Amino acid sequence: MSVTAPKGFRAAGVVAGLKPSGNRDVALVVNDGPSRAAAGVFTRNRVRAAPVLWSEQVLKGGRVRAVVLNAGGANACTGAPGFQDTHATAEKVADLLEDSAGEIAVCSTGLIGERLPMDLLLTGVDKAAAELTRGDGGLAAADAIRTTDTVAKISFRQGAGGYMIGAMAKGAGMLAPSLATMLSVITTDADLPAETLDRALRAATGVTLDRLDSDGCMSTNDTVLLMASGAAEVVPAEEEFTALLTEVCADLTRQLLVDAEGASKAIAIEVVGAASTEDAVTVGRSIARNNLLKCAIHGEDPNWGRVLSAVGTTDAVFDPDELNVAINGVWVCRGGSFGDDRDKVDLRPRDVTITVDLSAGPHSATVWTTDLTADYVHENSAYST
Amino acid sequence: MSVTAPKGFRAAGVVAGLKPSGNRDVALVVNDGPSRAAAGVFTRNRVRAAPVLWSEQVLKGGRVRAVVLNAGGANACTGAPGFQDTHATAEKVADLLEDSAGEIAVCSTGLIGERLPMDLLLTGVDKAAAELTRGDGGLAAADAIRTTDTVAKISFRQGAGGYMIGAMAKGAGMLAPSLATMLSVITTDADLPAETLDRALRAATGVTLDRLDSDGCMSTNDTVLLMASGAAEVVPAEEEFTALLTEVCADLTRQLLVDAEGASKAIAIEVVGAASTEDAVTVGRSIARNNLLKCAIHGEDPNWGRVLSAVGTTDAVFDPDELNVAINGVWVCRGGSFGDDRDKVDLRPRDVTITVDLSAGPHSATVWTTDLTADYVHENSAYST
Repeated sequence: MSVTAPKGFRAAGVVAGLKPSGNRDVALVVNDGPSRAAAGVFTRNRVRAAPVLWSEQVLKGGRVRAVVLNAGGANACTGAPGFQDTHATAEKVADLLEDSAGEIAVCSTGLIGERLPMDLLLTGVDKAAAELTRGDGGLAAADAIRTTDTVAKISFRQGAGGYMIGAMAKGAGMLAPSLATMLSVITTDADLPAETLDRALRAATGVTLDRLDSDGCMSTNDTVLLMASGAAEVVPAEEEFTALLTEVCADLTRQLLVDAEGASKAIAIEVVGAASTEDAVTVGRSIARNNLLKCAIHGEDPNWGRVLSAVGTTDAVFDPDELNVAINGVWVCRGGSFGDDRDKVDLRPRDVTITVDLSAGPHSATVWTTDLTADYVHENSAYST
Repeated sequence: MSVTAPKGFRAAGVVAGLKPSGNRDVALVVNDGPSRAAAGVFTRNRVRAAPVLWSEQVLKGGRVRAVVLNAGGANACTGAPGFQDTHATAEKVADLLEDSAGEIAVCSTGLIGERLPMDLLLTGVDKAAAELTRGDGGLAAADAIRTTDTVAKISFRQGAGGYMIGAMAKGAGMLAPSLATMLSVITTDADLPAETLDRALRAATGVTLDRLDSDGCMSTNDTVLLMASGAAEVVPAEEEFTALLTEVCADLTRQLLVDAEGASKAIAIEVVGAASTEDAVTVGRSIARNNLLKCAIHGEDPNWGRVLSAVGTTDAVFDPDELNVAINGVWVCRGGSFGDDRDKVDLRPRDVTITVDLSAGPHSATVWTTDLTADYVHENSAYST
């Protein structure tokens, strides 16, 4: 179902020949309305791919008729010619839909610094437009945007009054960081204006996708789009819609986490007792990015000293002598020193929870990451060659 | 020769039984004067090991009679009992030298969060004091401070007028970051006051050891000590002494770089055209910490897109469309887009140079790092178990 779970959307995923594997590589998602309100969040990287620059402009209008996505090339660091390629792709979709290119969003993922083979891509867009469906198209689209993803990621939920939210995503990184580019398209048949969608999307991604930090690397292409058709003729309360959207984003986050490149552990870093949410996120990210700790977790070694040394690099409010750390529920560090016996920690399960109590306030946040493995090294050593 | 190359110093390295391997693990370096002026730089981690807290206090007096170092335990995150252990170790050395504990520095390296076996350590200190020599003692001391180091790191240089600088180091990380704790003791028989030594040490480490960033992790224990005996009766000009000290520190940096855990490449990241030195260092560190790039270099893949995406995460002054990147001399990225053919890049040699031109000013800096390898993961997965 994916992005075609809500009414008013058609989608397709086709083989354009961009991926050497010969798998699907171009996806198209079309909003048939009656509304076409939309919102988007994009990478905070200052080096931004052509499709990000383009789609940011489109989203300023708060309306999106369709989004075209391709794997097999990021179209990043390709200069003015690359931007023209994105523009031409949007024009092509607009022609096929008899609509305006200014309301066509574009997403790309793949290797940076190479031009896209435009003949193949545009032929693929033709093919996708011809195959648009309300049924299987959503699954085909989710399949087409995969790069190193081992499975397609989709999610959908039904809201009060019968409206739906549907979604697809690829990648295993996120808006701030990124293992590979994270792209996600979320659709709904609820009837909400662009401003409400924007607030809901920022709130939902802020506590889910944005807190997935697989390897601390930030993509040039990360994009999350939210498109509303209004076809269900339901106007949900903003709070309720945001909660449902957050559920969908949390589901995608979990799927991205467990499929992260080379990962053997899914690690939740819960920071509690923080003086502010910002402090909690800062500390969580610092721990999530500590290679030594990520190796230790891979080795199923409850090496809490590496947690403390990561906390110590931040400017968060804390007293080193009041830090407490639990790993899978065992408080191995109390008051900045050794606590319960580290041998009590069972790190064999795939899911690992590291709890850090800063003893500095009432705020908390969770950041998710993965372990660092030889498989990660292997996969990312051989990626472009 | 190491720390005993300059006149006025004796050293020893002995087996105390702290390392399971049965190798040397306690080192002692004694300054017999006539001067005992000294300076030190320490980790910027806010979680600081007991020996760092102790030695910082000692260095505030600008005088160090001796430094005692142990491998086999970091004595970090060990609370008040751990601090008492450091104090007791300094007292023991002071007793043996009939001197003041307030002028005895202490350094430790090893696993965080475990008390040191003080009976073994203090017996080892006795043994070290009995074996102090001007000759082989320097080499034995350099050997004793190794943890995962595959070789002992030493350096020495002669200055104008016949004074010497000698040094030993262990680890493969540094003051800001750290792969494992970096400890270094540098000695000289030049006659310079503590304030001059402090300025020279900060200047020298600031452009050498402090710019080695093997894995972005910052130790709780990093320490570099500079001790002057004045025994050569030479008073070098500060500028000349600083230059010679920088040479010694650069030599140690290189040795630490090529012996970094699991590394197969030694990567120099030269950032030029920066609006400030700070910008150049910020950009260099961001690149040095990008796991995806470090994997690519391991795979001998000139994936310059990962360089640009790392630059884009910083707040340095630059225009994305004016970034140029060379890898081993081939300008694969010009004006933020593809430049010369990436296939021309030869990444087979161990030494790799990545040059980033920010096109924003006249400043530059070099940061050194290593590739990310399966061996790194293996070594750090199995470290404490």
